[in-house]
Amino acid sequence: MSLHNSSHSVGLVTPQVALFDEPLALACGRSLASYELVYETYGELNDDRSNAVLICHALSGHHHAAGYHSEQDKRPGWWNECIGPGKAIDTNRFYVVSLNNLGGCHGSTGPSTINPQTGKPWGPLFPPLRVRDWVNSQARLADLLGIECWAAIVGGSLGGMQAMRWALEYPQRVKHCLVIASAQKLSAQNIAFNEIARQAIVSDSKFAEGYYLDNNEIPDKGLALARMVGHITYLSDDAMASKFGRDLRSGTLEVGTDDSVEFQVESYLRYQGSRFSDSFDANTYILMTRALDYFDLAREYNHDPVAAFREATCSFLVVSFSSDWRFSPQRSQELVDALIAADRPVSYAEIESNDGHDAFLLPIPRYLEVISAYMTRVEEKR
Amino acid sequence: MSLHNSSHSVGLVTPQVALFDEPLALACGRSLASYELVYETYGELNDDRSNAVLICHALSGHHHAAGYHSEQDKRPGWWNECIGPGKAIDTNRFYVVSLNNLGGCHGSTGPSTINPQTGKPWGPLFPPLRVRDWVNSQARLADLLGIECWAAIVGGSLGGMQAMRWALEYPQRVKHCLVIASAQKLSAQNIAFNEIARQAIVSDSKFAEGYYLDNNEIPDKGLALARMVGHITYLSDDAMASKFGRDLRSGTLEVGTDDSVEFQVESYLRYQGSRFSDSFDANTYILMTRALDYFDLAREYNHDPVAAFREATCSFLVVSFSSDWRFSPQRSQELVDALIAADRPVSYAEIESNDGHDAFLLPIPRYLEVISAYMTRVEEKR
Repeated sequence: MSLHNSSHSVGLVTPQVALFDEPLALACGRSLASYELVYETYGELNDDRSNAVLICHALSGHHHAAGYHSEQDKRPGWWNECIGPGKAIDTNRFYVVSLNNLGGCHGSTGPSTINPQTGKPWGPLFPPLRVRDWVNSQARLADLLGIECWAAIVGGSLGGMQAMRWALEYPQRVKHCLVIASAQKLSAQNIAFNEIARQAIVSDSKFAEGYYLDNNEIPDKGLALARMVGHITYLSDDAMASKFGRDLRSGTLEVGTDDSVEFQVESYLRYQGSRFSDSFDANTYILMTRALDYFDLAREYNHDPVAAFREATCSFLVVSFSSDWRFSPQRSQELVDALIAADRPVSYAEIESNDGHDAFLLPIPRYLEVISAYMTRVEEKR
Repeated sequence: MSLHNSSHSVGLVTPQVALFDEPLALACGRSLASYELVYETYGELNDDRSNAVLICHALSGHHHAAGYHSEQDKRPGWWNECIGPGKAIDTNRFYVVSLNNLGGCHGSTGPSTINPQTGKPWGPLFPPLRVRDWVNSQARLADLLGIECWAAIVGGSLGGMQAMRWALEYPQRVKHCLVIASAQKLSAQNIAFNEIARQAIVSDSKFAEGYYLDNNEIPDKGLALARMVGHITYLSDDAMASKFGRDLRSGTLEVGTDDSVEFQVESYLRYQGSRFSDSFDANTYILMTRALDYFDLAREYNHDPVAAFREATCSFLVVSFSSDWRFSPQRSQELVDALIAADRPVSYAEIESNDGHDAFLLPIPRYLEVISAYMTRVEEKR
């Protein structure tokens, strides 16, 4: 029995594409005449359509959350440790839907797909998106799949923002909301890091004001730098110390060696950066970081998160990680406080971890136990 | 009476240039046949030459620490709040020497000055430097000025590393060592941030592998980005929040506005970045961050800082700032612990501040009081 069809894996999955040809009005005032969303599903929708779970991805995520695309596939989906038969999000009990967001670069309509009006890639002319646009486009996917109400919507980081926005915009369509390593809005420091990432991209001469695909080029250096900034800030200082310390790539450091000797952490960052620039679209990165920056849960509620959460009717699980300094436990506690004040049922867990913000993607036993226990409650109260 | 010659200012100062034409052997194995250092002095050297204080600058600093260069000068030197008549480092009592380090870009010999052997700017061919090279070059400046022993050597951040290296390399030539917001070595995270700054510079196509001056160009975008990275990490999250919050440059944010609307923090960062790229040399930035990365106080002492500090014979003041996350109080406490274990007299103060690493440049009353009180002791025990 191969890894790809073991009893612990959803096995081989095939992405689906949904075409939506009703115009979608966007927060920016423009609209998309039509768009496609690529998605995967794991498990079976039950007869009363009450066991559907939506996975919302974070900044650099996509639809391929679990299983394998082929027998040759070496790496499974990005949340394979959490989603599958008998796992925390148990595909024997739930019908799990995972999509690539609008504006993405893994198959859904976005800056790197063809604009039917011009026959060329959208590029920088793709409309700017807000989290609410994703939620609206996801609601149409739910319609298409015949899902009136999600048993749960689950998201980490930017995904958590989508889950919360769902709870406010479509309160009747979600029973449980799992908000992991997220916040009601970014801090100035967070916005500043995103701005550096964007500046790195637009400063790359190959970016060509966003029209790089027309030149058959990619702003690879800028994108690599953007990823490096993200990567450092998603790791904790301790995690970097234990991963690399001050080790040198080429062994010992003698006084007198020249600067071609490098620290391990540098070559690791360069590798991560260059790998990312091969697989991610620069305009999508700009679009998604902008959506992240502009997200402000309570803006339309007079900046009162308690008033915002009074719109919601679902229950909440909020999870944070002790060493996450970009979306710190304090940010999650603010959510919990607002939910309590708004009389919403809420469970909260802070997970001990040295892995910074990246912890939300890792198979930390207590983290998976917390999700598993909560999902059992979801099944009972769906 | 103008600001420039008030009783609280050192007034007008004129930078001096010292030429050293004995070859200087460097840690990298190469040597500089000759070099110049630009420096300023404030106050008077006393008859027994026992009141001299050396100021060592940090990454982007220079020799102009106090006073004004002309009546038209709007901004005084970078540590004017600390150095002057009646100030914490009192120029009525001390003879203060402040230089631009070798490899710098404010007048001392460095990558942007002419290599006499080629008649062109040194550029990337300027030898890489280590903190010990600065200390050796500063020792020659002390010789030239007739200073056998410094009453005190003072430095923040990278400057603190120079002060500590002095205490180990020239124990007989320093009585007191003031180490502010510094560390015995950088963490992997710190190195990673420096690496991003360097990558931003070398990725700029105008960098031309360091030969940009030959093309009459500067890698302004890369340098601006490098500065932006530094700037965020030198500020605390709280400082950024209180400085900018999530305020928008153009007033209110309506859902529907496009991405030309920006957050205040973004335009501030862009301004800081572009101002820096007009005034700082890219090769110098690379050289100085490398020196910072490679500094490791105890490398030659079997990685034992206690053994390292046993070389020292001076007394120490160590200062840290509560919200500094690049050179955290914990790093200062490690220095203090090692100094105590090495039987060195040491005073320690952690200053409450919201301003992150940048606090060491700010006129925080308790901080200046701590320095002032310690300098009184320096005067008594010089």
